Amino acid sequence: MDVEQARERFAEARVARLATVRTSGAPHLVPVTFAVVDDRTVVTAVDHKPKRSADLVRLANIEAEPQVSLLADHYEEDWTRLWWVRVDGHARVVRSGPERAAAIRALVDRYAQYHSREPEGPAVVIQVDRWTGWAW
Amino acid sequence: MDVEQARERFAEARVARLATVRTSGAPHLVPVTFAVVDDRTVVTAVDHKPKRSADLVRLANIEAEPQVSLLADHYEEDWTRLWWVRVDGHARVVRSGPERAAAIRALVDRYAQYHSREPEGPAVVIQVDRWTGWAW
Repeated sequence: MDVEQARERFAEARVARLATVRTSGAPHLVPVTFAVVDDRTVVTAVDHKPKRSADLVRLANIEAEPQVSLLADHYEEDWTRLWWVRVDGHARVVRSGPERAAAIRALVDRYAQYHSREPEGPAVVIQVDRWTGWAW
Repeated sequence: MDVEQARERFAEARVARLATVRTSGAPHLVPVTFAVVDDRTVVTAVDHKPKRSADLVRLANIEAEPQVSLLADHYEEDWTRLWWVRVDGHARVVRSGPERAAAIRALVDRYAQYHSREPEGPAVVIQVDRWTGWAW
């Protein structure tokens, strides 16, 4: 799968998994909603004010180690239809201001579920270093 | 979601994402088939002889940093039905012998797709340190 196809498939996926790295050296995984803003930028956000430990973990991890990975994949029992796309990049936590507002707007535009309650937490802005795609 | 429910949901999922950590400190993500062997053990394997760089990366990562994370999740547009389960643990690459054979057997038992061609690469045996589950 070439880079353009990888980007298209990723952009259409509804869920991705965000991997960050803890200061202990262990990886940390959480599913996220996201939006592809342009060829080099993916945004996600913490839905609610980050009180839950899982939310705090991902933000603290990024602030200590900005390298992150995102994965969207398709599974079905006919394995000839399997595919996945991985995004490797560098993330920043954006807690306020116009950059956060733009990220939240991109998410609200993409997910009707946010229309009644938009994400309240910080945005995570990921600068894409590499798109990698695979299909059977 | 309690630990028993988390384990049950994870065990029934058909795909998980395996996060390892590169020596550069970046996380690495790949979707995997897997089997829950018992309360403390999850196995996965490289399907074919690991010539592809992606296969080599995950094995080299584990040999340098055994801490791994696995995530199974369920997405649908009705967000009241979302759930995910994360497994945090320590992994070992098992290249031959009875432990590899048992892991491959567990995978072949679970996936009919392997009946005609079983995984040829090393097994990855993950000792579970923690099951974490979340549902809306």
